[in-house]
Amino acid sequence: MKVKVSRKAHFNAAHRLYRRDWSFERNEATFGKCNNPKYHGHNYDLIVSVTGEIDAETGYVMDMKVLKDLIKEEVENAMDHKNLNEEVPEFQNLNPTAENIAVVIFNKLRPHIDSSKELEVVLYETPRNFVTYSG
Amino acid sequence: MKVKVSRKAHFNAAHRLYRRDWSFERNEATFGKCNNPKYHGHNYDLIVSVTGEIDAETGYVMDMKVLKDLIKEEVENAMDHKNLNEEVPEFQNLNPTAENIAVVIFNKLRPHIDSSKELEVVLYETPRNFVTYSG
Amino acid sequence: MKVKVSRKAHFNAAHRLYRRDWSFERNEATFGKCNNPKYHGHNYDLIVSVTGEIDAETGYVMDMKVLKDLIKEEVENAMDHKNLNEEVPEFQNLNPTAENIAVVIFNKLRPHIDSSKELEVVLYETPRNFVTYSG
Amino acid sequence: MKVKVSRKAHFNAAHRLYRRDWSFERNEATFGKCNNPKYHGHNYDLIVSVTGEIDAETGYVMDMKVLKDLIKEEVENAMDHKNLNEEVPEFQNLNPTAENIAVVIFNKLRPHIDSSKELEVVLYETPRNFVTYSG
Amino acid sequence: MKVKVSRKAHFNAAHRLYRRDWSFERNEATFGKCNNPKYHGHNYDLIVSVTGEIDAETGYVMDMKVLKDLIKEEVENAMDHKNLNEEVPEFQNLNPTAENIAVVIFNKLRPHIDSSKELEVVLYETPRNFVTYSG
Amino acid sequence: MKVKVSRKAHFNAAHRLYRRDWSFERNEATFGKCNNPKYHGHNYDLIVSVTGEIDAETGYVMDMKVLKDLIKEEVENAMDHKNLNEEVPEFQNLNPTAENIAVVIFNKLRPHIDSSKELEVVLYETPRNFVTYSG
Repeated sequence: MKVKVSRKAHFNAAHRLYRRDWSFERNEATFGKCNNPKYHGHNYDLIVSVTGEIDAETGYVMDMKVLKDLIKEEVENAMDHKNLNEEVPEFQNLNPTAENIAVVIFNKLRPHIDSSKELEVVLYETPRNFVTYSG
Repeated sequence: MKVKVSRKAHFNAAHRLYRRDWSFERNEATFGKCNNPKYHGHNYDLIVSVTGEIDAETGYVMDMKVLKDLIKEEVENAMDHKNLNEEVPEFQNLNPTAENIAVVIFNKLRPHIDSSKELEVVLYETPRNFVTYSG
Repeated sequence: MKVKVSRKAHFNAAHRLYRRDWSFERNEATFGKCNNPKYHGHNYDLIVSVTGEIDAETGYVMDMKVLKDLIKEEVENAMDHKNLNEEVPEFQNLNPTAENIAVVIFNKLRPHIDSSKELEVVLYETPRNFVTYSG
Repeated sequence: MKVKVSRKAHFNAAHRLYRRDWSFERNEATFGKCNNPKYHGHNYDLIVSVTGEIDAETGYVMDMKVLKDLIKEEVENAMDHKNLNEEVPEFQNLNPTAENIAVVIFNKLRPHIDSSKELEVVLYETPRNFVTYSG
Repeated sequence: MKVKVSRKAHFNAAHRLYRRDWSFERNEATFGKCNNPKYHGHNYDLIVSVTGEIDAETGYVMDMKVLKDLIKEEVENAMDHKNLNEEVPEFQNLNPTAENIAVVIFNKLRPHIDSSKELEVVLYETPRNFVTYSG
Repeated sequence: MKVKVSRKAHFNAAHRLYRRDWSFERNEATFGKCNNPKYHGHNYDLIVSVTGEIDAETGYVMDMKVLKDLIKEEVENAMDHKNLNEEVPEFQNLNPTAENIAVVIFNKLRPHIDSSKELEVVLYETPRNFVTYSG
């Protein structure tokens, strides 16, 4: 009886899409207004899902409070009210596209989730643009 | 040409997370404020999905009105405006976590859906906590 | 330059609509399935709005963090994961309809909001039923 | 590192569920009020998802602006503010159920998405009825 | 203690914006693609609000079930799955803009609401376009 | 017959709450993590409402396409994918709180709306924090 349990969280951050090793013109051609050197920002919505067997004793796949606290420690504390490019080490040399942010979040959470369980991350950059990553 | 058709429904219910065979202290340590003996409650949102071939005659995988009525008979009539612990027989000896409620709903619906079709249940306990079960 | 600032919060609670001084039959005729003696429950969404002049120094009408903390102390701590009829003193002899809950919340918050400012409370019992009270 | 990127769009259209080769009575028995010969309509919400490897250079699976423009050209221009039965050629002899509309949209988009990538279409006929198709 | 109680409903309909007494060209210049003679459609969301004193006995301003049934009889039965221009008599000679639909709905409901109470109608044509009318 | 017509729009921007003429410590004490010198950001949702008489000829209070285009020119072009503090002249010496942004947007739109009509601006900084200004 495998069940997927999901928890929604959010954080607000500034970012800019560009590569340090490209010219401004090439960044502009590729990333358009997302390349604004003064940054822009988003209210990111995050859905983290863990899939596994229901524990027969508790009726939980995973205690949602534990999952909520884990997201707070690993993701919100690192990214909320931050400039992703300048203040989050993982994006020092990695373009903070929604795809890359989702992979970074997955990699931050994966070691803390029991290896018998599957992990999935959905990241909404806006209500119209979102990405899904499950390793 | 397999298509998944989904129908959203909802019901309001009271519940309490605890095991009859555990001490109050152990229930409190495990389930926290969800163990309140006077109960609390939720507006549960439910998404039921059925996956199968499109019927070439009607263009339907399954008539959504039939699915809507089935959810009403099997789930809403049994759980809406009810106390899950005290009034829904399936939870007589089963802790009504979101995981277990989803499994119970799946098991109530499964016999009524053609066996050639797949069934999936998503249950939102709150807009931030939800679970998915597909047998 | 009067501006209205609004903060959204939520709490989950059990309740039952009935009057202690009415017969079961009269309660049933008036409140229908909301009179279930075993209770049912809701995810209540709450929007609290404060209207006043923008402070020229801070650019705030009221610090939203202060408003958020006030709602937590006065409303969430009192009502979240509670049985409104049995555990919230204001409903000892008051039927916990959405209307009455909104008035109780307003009265709990009003003394903590500067008297030069207006207060408004919107309470969603479900996404389809909600009430608004402003004193 | 496969990631699914999703883009939400919408269009408003009129339609009627019926088969030209069936009697009015049979259409009425099968499709009920959806068979109204004067038509009714919907605000369709559409989520198009593309799954593939993240491009190491850009950090994109697919440029969301390109996906947005593709949806506009292939779907919105063809269906927005249109009568699906009378003005969209694919439904000349195909009943415009949500299932069939999703398949038609998938088939219009598929040739424009790199064959190494997977495509999925979710179509909301209403917030309560939606379908998913991925080929 | 005046409280506003609100109930959300919805209906799906086809319509076309145009005036019978104008040329096609003038209609086209004024209403653009909304003038499509084959019609288009919407999922209309409707919020009906009634403001009045809380009844001391019941704790209700107005029984929401009564309001729900009234909206069903007066609005949904008249407009759901209908072509507003051709099947709703009020629009025989009245352009079914969101503004005019809201006024028509208000006028249909007003005689059924106690004259001591205020009535307000909010009509969403799409999630991005909506109108409010209160007499 | 006065009706309020509303149009929803959005823009993404970076900002920082602080006063140039205050010490870092005083800014930190007042604005907390919103004072991050590297900025953070939001998906701002904006609802612009215009209240006036329905034009008897068109059935419009104001053509929503005109309102949509006006918001695009005056607000989105000025603020979308921008750093509010550094790139929007109105915030050169004005703290970009939600309150002040709403007033700036109101002042930018007011001259373009017929003086016989009322204007209201609702600005969502997040789905939980929003402000309303109507002059």
